[in-house]
Amino acid sequence: MRIALFQMTALPGDVESNLALIEDAIIQAAEGGATLLIAPELATVGYGSGDAITARAEPVDGDQIKALAEMAAREGVAVIAGFPERDGGRVYNSAVFTDGRNAPVAYRKSQLYGAYERAIFAAGEPAAVMASHGGLRIGMLICYDVEFPENVRRLALAGADLVAVPTALPRVPEAAIITERMIPVRAFENQIFVAYTNHSGRDELFAYAGRSRIAAPDGASLTTASETDTCVIFAEIDPPKYAASREINSYLRDLRR
Amino acid sequence: MRIALFQMTALPGDVESNLALIEDAIIQAAEGGATLLIAPELATVGYGSGDAITARAEPVDGDQIKALAEMAAREGVAVIAGFPERDGGRVYNSAVFTDGRNAPVAYRKSQLYGAYERAIFAAGEPAAVMASHGGLRIGMLICYDVEFPENVRRLALAGADLVAVPTALPRVPEAAIITERMIPVRAFENQIFVAYTNHSGRDELFAYAGRSRIAAPDGASLTTASETDTCVIFAEIDPPKYAASREINSYLRDLRR
Repeated sequence: MRIALFQMTALPGDVESNLALIEDAIIQAAEGGATLLIAPELATVGYGSGDAITARAEPVDGDQIKALAEMAAREGVAVIAGFPERDGGRVYNSAVFTDGRNAPVAYRKSQLYGAYERAIFAAGEPAAVMASHGGLRIGMLICYDVEFPENVRRLALAGADLVAVPTALPRVPEAAIITERMIPVRAFENQIFVAYTNHSGRDELFAYAGRSRIAAPDGASLTTASETDTCVIFAEIDPPKYAASREINSYLRDLRR
Repeated sequence: MRIALFQMTALPGDVESNLALIEDAIIQAAEGGATLLIAPELATVGYGSGDAITARAEPVDGDQIKALAEMAAREGVAVIAGFPERDGGRVYNSAVFTDGRNAPVAYRKSQLYGAYERAIFAAGEPAAVMASHGGLRIGMLICYDVEFPENVRRLALAGADLVAVPTALPRVPEAAIITERMIPVRAFENQIFVAYTNHSGRDELFAYAGRSRIAAPDGASLTTASETDTCVIFAEIDPPKYAASREINSYLRDLRR
């Protein structure tokens, strides 16, 4: 299965414009032969948009996800995108999978990062939330979640072939080790694919580190974006191609706890 | 505290010669100002020495550990070294910490790798085995153990400042990702030091990948050896220097499971 990542520069608080950007990227993904597009954390509202996040939070059956589902159905490209999820009085930092046909699947970030997020969001419970698409099992995590090996392991043990990680990693000194080393190691130590989709550009609060990538089970990066690109990048997710790697690096089979 | 790693080329089955090599390295470590030397997996007998491993296996109170304890006491340098541990009818792939004064602390590898090891050894139970030295808490793992994030996490949550990893990593395609990326990521994701000590050279069964290193909490490698060196390398283990890194990358405090 061919997938695409959308390293986007979101407009803070402007959900309509961000949905239009995602729609453009879905069309590019379809033209490039992909059947899944992964957008960043809080892609619909922008990560650094502060109060607008709460103001524009919607339930999974709200207009944002309806719009994404319609695009997915029309273009034949499933979408994973971060959005602010309202559930009664609470707001979660969530990601949704929708293929436009089946009910959307939503994941709530369990590892909130720092005072900014904790002031806005409630934390989800750690859980293996997965969708099926194109014969693959796709797990979801968001940003800081993937920095904890336990979260990727949970999905791998539940059978994930690919873990999709919408993120909003700022330009911090740690950005290099997280993108260049940790993401490939997460793929390698679980013998799965990891798709890490970041923002680029900046908003009032943060400058983003870009460097989106898809890491393969052998730890190779199949595709990467630069720090500053706004772009759609592609890679083939072909688990049988890595059967020999899984056989030699038999972590999931050998694990004792 | 200054520590030293001994990237050695062990003589298969020749315990006496290997103990002499380790003694030389302890003297070099002392001259370099180190108070701890870490030798590789099965340093006393050689990793690829087959039947000799079983033949030369000894309990923790046997002659091999007595010899190491005497060297440690004489030179004022504690030692961590891999050795084949006999316990009744079983042989474990173990590592010992001895400072020559207190009772030795032994750790048994819990993640045996491949048919070669499984034919020789019984597996230890996953456990946080730690020693105290120079004001630091030092955990032990052996080779394949460290490739499972759960094992390093267990030690970090038990309070380890440093995880010492005697290893025998062969020259396989995965050697680069394990040494250059996974070992630094293990240090970073737990905000601890990881000291990974490999063999160099070859024996009848394996050629070894060298590349020993000490990774710091920020993911930097404080010292590294080449693939082919036989050498003693040094670094300073200074946890307070990384207080800012631990504060920003607060994985142990934030972890939810």
